[in-house]
Amino acid sequence: MTKWVYTFGDGQAEGNASLRNLLGGKGANLAEMCSLGLPVPPGFTISTEVCTWFYAHDNKYPLDLAQQVDAALKHVGKLSGRGFGDKENPLLVSVRSGARASMPGMMDTVLNLGLNDETVEAVAKLSNNPRFAYDSYRRFITMYSNVVLELEHHNFEDILEEYKDHKGYTLDTEMTAEDWKAIIVSFKACVQENLGKPFPQDPYEQLWGAIGAVFGSWMNARAIKYRDLHSIPESWGTAVNVQAMVFGNMGDTSATGVAFTRNPSTGTKELYGEFLINAQGEDVVAGIRTPQDITEAARIAAGSTKPSLEAAMPEAYKELVRIYGLLENHYRDMQDLEFTIERGKLWMLQTRNGKRTAKAALRIAVDLANEGLISQEEAVKRVDPASLDQLLHPTIDPKATRLQFATGLPASPGAATGEIVFTSEEAEEAKKAKRKCILVRVETSPEDIHGMHAAEGILTTRGGMTSHAAVVARGMGKPCVSGAGTIRIDMAAGTMSCAGKTLKRGDFITIDGGNGQVLVGEIAMLLMEWADKARRLKIRTNAETPLDARTAVKFGAEGIGLCRTEHMFFEGERIIAMREMILADDEKGRRAALAKLLPMQRSDFIELFEIMKGLPVTIRLLDPPLHEFLPHEPREIQEVAEAMGASAEKLRIRALELRESNPMLGFRGCRLAVAYPEIAEMQARAIFEAAVEVEKRTGAMVTPEVMVPLVMTKPELDLVKARIDAMAAEVAKETGVTVPYQVGTMIELPRAALRAGEIAGAAEFFSFGTNDLTQTTLGISRDDAGNFLGSYKARGILAEDPFVTLDQEGVGELVKLAVERGKAARANLKLGLCGEHGGDPASIAFCESVGLDYVSCSPFRVPIARLAAAQAALGKVTKAEG
Amino acid sequence: MTKWVYTFGDGQAEGNASLRNLLGGKGANLAEMCSLGLPVPPGFTISTEVCTWFYAHDNKYPLDLAQQVDAALKHVGKLSGRGFGDKENPLLVSVRSGARASMPGMMDTVLNLGLNDETVEAVAKLSNNPRFAYDSYRRFITMYSNVVLELEHHNFEDILEEYKDHKGYTLDTEMTAEDWKAIIVSFKACVQENLGKPFPQDPYEQLWGAIGAVFGSWMNARAIKYRDLHSIPESWGTAVNVQAMVFGNMGDTSATGVAFTRNPSTGTKELYGEFLINAQGEDVVAGIRTPQDITEAARIAAGSTKPSLEAAMPEAYKELVRIYGLLENHYRDMQDLEFTIERGKLWMLQTRNGKRTAKAALRIAVDLANEGLISQEEAVKRVDPASLDQLLHPTIDPKATRLQFATGLPASPGAATGEIVFTSEEAEEAKKAKRKCILVRVETSPEDIHGMHAAEGILTTRGGMTSHAAVVARGMGKPCVSGAGTIRIDMAAGTMSCAGKTLKRGDFITIDGGNGQVLVGEIAMLLMEWADKARRLKIRTNAETPLDARTAVKFGAEGIGLCRTEHMFFEGERIIAMREMILADDEKGRRAALAKLLPMQRSDFIELFEIMKGLPVTIRLLDPPLHEFLPHEPREIQEVAEAMGASAEKLRIRALELRESNPMLGFRGCRLAVAYPEIAEMQARAIFEAAVEVEKRTGAMVTPEVMVPLVMTKPELDLVKARIDAMAAEVAKETGVTVPYQVGTMIELPRAALRAGEIAGAAEFFSFGTNDLTQTTLGISRDDAGNFLGSYKARGILAEDPFVTLDQEGVGELVKLAVERGKAARANLKLGLCGEHGGDPASIAFCESVGLDYVSCSPFRVPIARLAAAQAALGKVTKAEG
Repeated sequence: MTKWVYTFGDGQAEGNASLRNLLGGKGANLAEMCSLGLPVPPGFTISTEVCTWFYAHDNKYPLDLAQQVDAALKHVGKLSGRGFGDKENPLLVSVRSGARASMPGMMDTVLNLGLNDETVEAVAKLSNNPRFAYDSYRRFITMYSNVVLELEHHNFEDILEEYKDHKGYTLDTEMTAEDWKAIIVSFKACVQENLGKPFPQDPYEQLWGAIGAVFGSWMNARAIKYRDLHSIPESWGTAVNVQAMVFGNMGDTSATGVAFTRNPSTGTKELYGEFLINAQGEDVVAGIRTPQDITEAARIAAGSTKPSLEAAMPEAYKELVRIYGLLENHYRDMQDLEFTIERGKLWMLQTRNGKRTAKAALRIAVDLANEGLISQEEAVKRVDPASLDQLLHPTIDPKATRLQFATGLPASPGAATGEIVFTSEEAEEAKKAKRKCILVRVETSPEDIHGMHAAEGILTTRGGMTSHAAVVARGMGKPCVSGAGTIRIDMAAGTMSCAGKTLKRGDFITIDGGNGQVLVGEIAMLLMEWADKARRLKIRTNAETPLDARTAVKFGAEGIGLCRTEHMFFEGERIIAMREMILADDEKGRRAALAKLLPMQRSDFIELFEIMKGLPVTIRLLDPPLHEFLPHEPREIQEVAEAMGASAEKLRIRALELRESNPMLGFRGCRLAVAYPEIAEMQARAIFEAAVEVEKRTGAMVTPEVMVPLVMTKPELDLVKARIDAMAAEVAKETGVTVPYQVGTMIELPRAALRAGEIAGAAEFFSFGTNDLTQTTLGISRDDAGNFLGSYKARGILAEDPFVTLDQEGVGELVKLAVERGKAARANLKLGLCGEHGGDPASIAFCESVGLDYVSCSPFRVPIARLAAAQAALGKVTKAEG
Repeated sequence: MTKWVYTFGDGQAEGNASLRNLLGGKGANLAEMCSLGLPVPPGFTISTEVCTWFYAHDNKYPLDLAQQVDAALKHVGKLSGRGFGDKENPLLVSVRSGARASMPGMMDTVLNLGLNDETVEAVAKLSNNPRFAYDSYRRFITMYSNVVLELEHHNFEDILEEYKDHKGYTLDTEMTAEDWKAIIVSFKACVQENLGKPFPQDPYEQLWGAIGAVFGSWMNARAIKYRDLHSIPESWGTAVNVQAMVFGNMGDTSATGVAFTRNPSTGTKELYGEFLINAQGEDVVAGIRTPQDITEAARIAAGSTKPSLEAAMPEAYKELVRIYGLLENHYRDMQDLEFTIERGKLWMLQTRNGKRTAKAALRIAVDLANEGLISQEEAVKRVDPASLDQLLHPTIDPKATRLQFATGLPASPGAATGEIVFTSEEAEEAKKAKRKCILVRVETSPEDIHGMHAAEGILTTRGGMTSHAAVVARGMGKPCVSGAGTIRIDMAAGTMSCAGKTLKRGDFITIDGGNGQVLVGEIAMLLMEWADKARRLKIRTNAETPLDARTAVKFGAEGIGLCRTEHMFFEGERIIAMREMILADDEKGRRAALAKLLPMQRSDFIELFEIMKGLPVTIRLLDPPLHEFLPHEPREIQEVAEAMGASAEKLRIRALELRESNPMLGFRGCRLAVAYPEIAEMQARAIFEAAVEVEKRTGAMVTPEVMVPLVMTKPELDLVKARIDAMAAEVAKETGVTVPYQVGTMIELPRAALRAGEIAGAAEFFSFGTNDLTQTTLGISRDDAGNFLGSYKARGILAEDPFVTLDQEGVGELVKLAVERGKAARANLKLGLCGEHGGDPASIAFCESVGLDYVSCSPFRVPIARLAAAQAALGKVTKAEG
């Protein structure tokens, strides 16, 4: 005989937390709490398998279900000392849905079930509280009629309002027992009138009606929509929980509430929540009465005059504190609790892992690890890497949560981010080096004006809204937080401290001159340390500017995985020289123009190599089609021609010659280097000369990795590599310094992936250019995808935007193939990925699974990538981000 | 001891034809002829391995080579009854190169080697012909000095010219023995003067000098260039053939010549070639004397007055005829022979498979099969499919060879091709059905004017240059051949015959009014029949117009593999309706425009289905991006807007909205059908309604194959297929006729190939769209490839143009994968290919190897594809075409 029904109560349960799929989240946790000896009203769970059976059999129940429910009801009656339908001592129950995944508010609940014209009298007598009994009965009629009989709420609300008007009442609390009794008569008449049959008096009929309504609600429009949005399969079904009622509405020693074991917004370890005295759960939800705080601290912080639970019901509060500690220890995570206090006794009605903000998630994970409840690895796995974007990105986004270091006065509006500097001289130096800084001073004086000019914002620990700093900053239009008195500056040590936290010169902070906040990411930093211990993948960055490179290094980048050299040719004199090269009639002309670019390109590389201090730097040779460097509109052509001293006609013709139908698949990448090897030669020379120079200056060995783009066949790579090798030899001969270097290629065409075995014969590393590989494998131009990609995601044709999360089934198979074939041909082949996917957690998990050595992403995604890589190494199953 | 030297002579040989790699082509065939008992002057071959050894060892010979050469020389001397270097009875030899692959004229040859001041006297005495002896010696000095001593020819020519001037001679034949003797003295002095050493007198020194020169010539510039052009590896090396001299210059009973066993231009079975009496090989090549014909028939045909070999030396001729039959039987192919006749005796110096024109190749293959020398399958394998293009394409290309049916008078210039019709009525009917025809009449009369107007050209069997046909045709500017008196027309049978060949009404002929030729491809047709028996692959055609479909059926197409429906929307009212659809603001507007297109589209399909008479027709749904249907230039926009009665501004904006950076990877293919399913619905409805109509009209069952383009994922295909299925059901309901049909997809994106297993779940057939699959796999836009693809082929980065011959390593692997995965998911999956590669022999061989069911190509390539498919089935290793 299949077991359809699982009982719990009095310290014992047939189920437990591991049976979530069978009993739903609520049922499984009720059973678990029972087994832990917590005060849970007895009850039973009808399993999700019944729901599945129900829908598979034309909305009928298994034959033996009724018998199992009867037995369970008897068991609950025995534990509670009452009888279901008993006219002297009736057992009342709640009937609630409970799916595998939480679907809050989506399905139906019925409370106070078992009340009828007879049992209500018994309840009145037993509770010695007729008003409570009739109140409960009218609530039951309303709820049941609505949920089971599908009679709309307003029918009953209208009757009640009319009655109250007639009596001159404003609030429900003015209603007496007799009033409710009269209302019940009207409510029943309303049911009779609308449905042509009386409100059911048989408790068993009531129970099966409610069970049917819960199962039926699995297929209501709200639930279907919710499942759609959250990818919950229809086949999971819901369970039904039938539980002896406990009453929060039995007077002033009764209450009902919800609580989180930690603050779900900040993550702070504090009991957080609200409750209502003399109420049932629905009242809390309805929002008619203002709920009270659980702790005194919260009450004071909120400035509330209503007593806290801590003050109003100290015994129940003490019990709640005990239980929350116990549940956190047991579940090893922050819990979201529901409870009811009946005449002073606390009953637990629900526990589950609480939803939380990104900021709280981070803090809770770190705190739980520090408290020894979970391991550091577990903490690393629990934080969604995407949330780091909010937490670490140095802008003040109103939606972002904030890591507060201290607060001061909002002295001059606006937000600013930068490194901490403590003197105006440092501020000026930073400015010169194009680094953003926040000038931190005890107070400022006229001597600080130049420093204030150089800084992004000003933070002082002394002085008010009319202090020198405040006044000057407002005049300059710069953000300023003044008088942050809790901060102590130690000039000698180059640090500032507040409440036990210390930041040092060069650390990033953010000030918000609009509200006086001083923010920092220190908790994130701790987690990142743990993550770095756990991960195997190296994280590099895509960067070509010194600023990007520096930012990435600060965020923990372990090298540059992609330096797009073409970005270096778009400015000032460079684009002029570039255009001269493109317009040149022959190789000699091109070489002359390239000679002008060489020193600029070399100095770019010198700067990058110095910033990266010996970390690997992968430099990609010129990639885009040449027409990207030329003007196309007649007027622009005229202007450029004049500026260059060239013929507009010639410029126009060359631009026309170079125009392409599909530039993405055109004359670009190594195709340029094959046609005009002198370009690759200039770039290679600049790289090697820069490496020599940096080695001379700093003594640090630079090992550039020269990357040839858009390779389709090995001979292309052979040709370009020969030129690079020749340049390396020339530079070694000229300077007497031999630079170690590697030559590799981007794998960004399907053919290159397929022929990876061959290509690895000439390449010392592969970097998967998954942007272009996605474009070619899927046949989608990223620039043009707007016309259909959105609707493709909406229709479920593509699960994710393939330019955000790697298409593992298509592009991923090519990457896997290329890894296998490349490694087979060259065992020590270095493997990386440098598309946009390098910063996407799901894609990073894929990179870990196929054994790449590193991923490379934009500077601000480096922390996300570090965390995601750690999670991938720890075997966390990451879902796609989008 | 390695065997370096292989002797032959007197009916015995150490080598044979199978040792071509070791002995070179010439050496292997000399050995083979010896073994066949043919008269071959004795000699020996120094193997190609010596050449390889020579270059691997710094231009030195293996130690034991000299000893083996000495032994071989002795053997040759014994067989010829002479001694090398013997002063009484000297053996003279020729030294010739001979590589594995024929490299005509690329390497060096020395004749008459062994002559010196002493042996020349012996030769003079023995031959009783001093003039011959001295002539041979001066030839030897010239040739040896040039080839071995690198003294340029003109040195000797100048001396000879001066001598002749001095003597008052014009021709070399005026030179007497004494004259040559004097010349020899001058020649030797010239050598002494230029090189500072005498002309070598030692025959051994001469021999090793010549051997060294032959090996050295393997690396001369000409040979290197030739190998480059013909992809002959350097490592093959050349052999050296040393052979006893026979002399064609021993007087009027001596001669030298070359012959083909069949006419290399037409393929006709006739001994074809030329010879010179009293000459050595070099004289034939030099072209100073006009060579004579071999057969009397040839002499008469050429109108030559010089006697043929047949007439001049009947015994030698008889022997040559015997030998040519024997060699053809032995080699089972047309042979290219070299021979020398010394005092009446025929000696064979070379045989090899003769080069031939495309036309001759076809004829020879068919004739050899008809003669029983080779099988029909072998005949099919021997014809290069690419050559069919020349032979069957109905245009008169001056370079193309022609299959002549008859000749008449060139009555009105120009060429025309068409079906044979015999009455003016037929001509008019053909014209109405858009079929081209040639009106064939005994003679024309004024009643034929309308038929002459309707025909492409006129052929009459009677009447001259001023006949009615000729005069009228010239007036009309139409090609005409008149008075082709050898043609007999049988109106009753609907045939015309000439010289035993018969053509019937509807056969294609071509007339050339410029020279009076009447041409046809009948020999090709016979070969095609054999090919059809041998092949497994079906051949379909890419066609959307009735003309293309009809042409393809005539050429043997077995269905339409690709009907590109967009081509049906570019004309007249259609493009207007199409533009209305694109400009429509909503689905309703689009449906209204599509309703106008429906009847046109339906009638297109009715016509195609009728032409294809039950053969399968694959119809691809709309594929190109919509902007292809819109104007883009301001003026054009204005015109179109006016013509449509639409707003120019709206048109401009819509065109701008639809513009794409990379249209190839944009909003096209099934992406259109997903966004605007009503387009696919209209097309599907037109297909099914047409099929119903044709079935009603003709009773023939039509099974349309509906093809969804650019599928990347299965859900796309599911979505579009659902619409197609719905339309099929609707049409079945409306008409009461259920049309059998299939839905399939093009595999033209790498992702589709990779996910073929999944996609085959929804597709009943795959058609590999290798044009787009090549573009995406290689990342090359075909439209833009001009900038670099040529240089890529030239530099050897790509062996072939991947848009002509399928890139088997890249694209081919994806095709293979898709075939495997598709078949695994659906065992009866139909597989075809419909890119340009469908007409390329190398690509067709690939299709055979991966087990496709059919290829589809343009109508005129159908015969090529049929032949290539047969060759692939017969296991011929096909090289790429380009």
